[in-house]
Amino acid sequence: MNKVAVILSGSGVFDGAEIHESVLTMLALSQRGVAYQCFAPDISQLHVVNHLTGDVVETEPRNVLVEAARIARGNVLPVSALAAVDYDALLVPGGFGAAKNLCNFALVGANCQVEPSVLRACREFAELAKPTGYMCIAPVLAARVYGEGVRLTIGNDKETADALRIMGAEHVDCEVDDIVVDKTHKLVTTPAYMLAKDIAEAAQGINKLVDAVLAFR
Amino acid sequence: MNKVAVILSGSGVFDGAEIHESVLTMLALSQRGVAYQCFAPDISQLHVVNHLTGDVVETEPRNVLVEAARIARGNVLPVSALAAVDYDALLVPGGFGAAKNLCNFALVGANCQVEPSVLRACREFAELAKPTGYMCIAPVLAARVYGEGVRLTIGNDKETADALRIMGAEHVDCEVDDIVVDKTHKLVTTPAYMLAKDIAEAAQGINKLVDAVLAFR
Repeated sequence: MNKVAVILSGSGVFDGAEIHESVLTMLALSQRGVAYQCFAPDISQLHVVNHLTGDVVETEPRNVLVEAARIARGNVLPVSALAAVDYDALLVPGGFGAAKNLCNFALVGANCQVEPSVLRACREFAELAKPTGYMCIAPVLAARVYGEGVRLTIGNDKETADALRIMGAEHVDCEVDDIVVDKTHKLVTTPAYMLAKDIAEAAQGINKLVDAVLAFR
Repeated sequence: MNKVAVILSGSGVFDGAEIHESVLTMLALSQRGVAYQCFAPDISQLHVVNHLTGDVVETEPRNVLVEAARIARGNVLPVSALAAVDYDALLVPGGFGAAKNLCNFALVGANCQVEPSVLRACREFAELAKPTGYMCIAPVLAARVYGEGVRLTIGNDKETADALRIMGAEHVDCEVDDIVVDKTHKLVTTPAYMLAKDIAEAAQGINKLVDAVLAFR
């Protein structure tokens, strides 16, 4: 196959997919000669954030799939169309969209539920024992997908790590340029912008994650 | 100084800055240990394009500066605040935003005018003989900034190249992984997504452009 699925959560760190992480993911795949297909849930964003001021704005709703198409240059499919059997692996960049649109961790923490179409797709990769990589805050999804005992990282933020432990995950502190590998679940995680001070730092961890996920194939 | 200014034109290839080109520009700078500051004009976008369908949508106007903040993770300033004296160089990624928001080339071709706050900033870099790099369709701005005889590329699209010649520029055909350097004006251009078939190809030309611009310092 040599093709990887990427699930995006909008377009913009504060209400959607972290743009740098998403683009670095695509770049790493493309530079390694691996094709990718982007997906996103066809739902409204939780809200719209003015990224200049940081304020939630009263505006027309924006659709996660439609906004994700900005990062994907138009080539994005609804996540309901994602069949794990058609792909070698799954990658999920972070950004608040992962915690606001793909699940509701940003609202309810350890009690979070994953958006159903996203949960179905992610579970399929788990059930087929296909490798996956979750970045930044996206490992909160992995905690729900893989369940009790899954080993992962979101960096070293204590509050988030504690919530992950309540969800049953084993959280491992991790540096920005490193990854945590759960060999049993073929799951790779990296802190990315949970810790990165600049884009070059984020790239180090993401490149390592992509290498580790591809090595599982 | 060791700091470069980057002018963005929104967030999304069809109505704003090309996201991959913008992120690749920041990555190249960051990996070379060079700081950057993003800028954008504080104006309404020409229009909003649904990037999933390609349609112009009747929606609330979006502001170029506010949307550019998505790519810049909030750290973007109005281009009216850009003083060339404070920076080593200027980089301008492409995307339709460069031809729709930074100037009106997408509407009127060779008769285009550059948005006044953008023109003032770009001209300042030219007047101070500071190096600049324009990617993709953004060289249409450079044709207006540098005037008669400037040497540049947008790849090999005949219609656009002809328009640039009408504007007084010397257009040079160029491969996606290469650059055109105008030593007199310290201007570097590369086709990026005017030709790139994937993000790894775009990165090759952009990395070469960033190296050439930084070498002029």
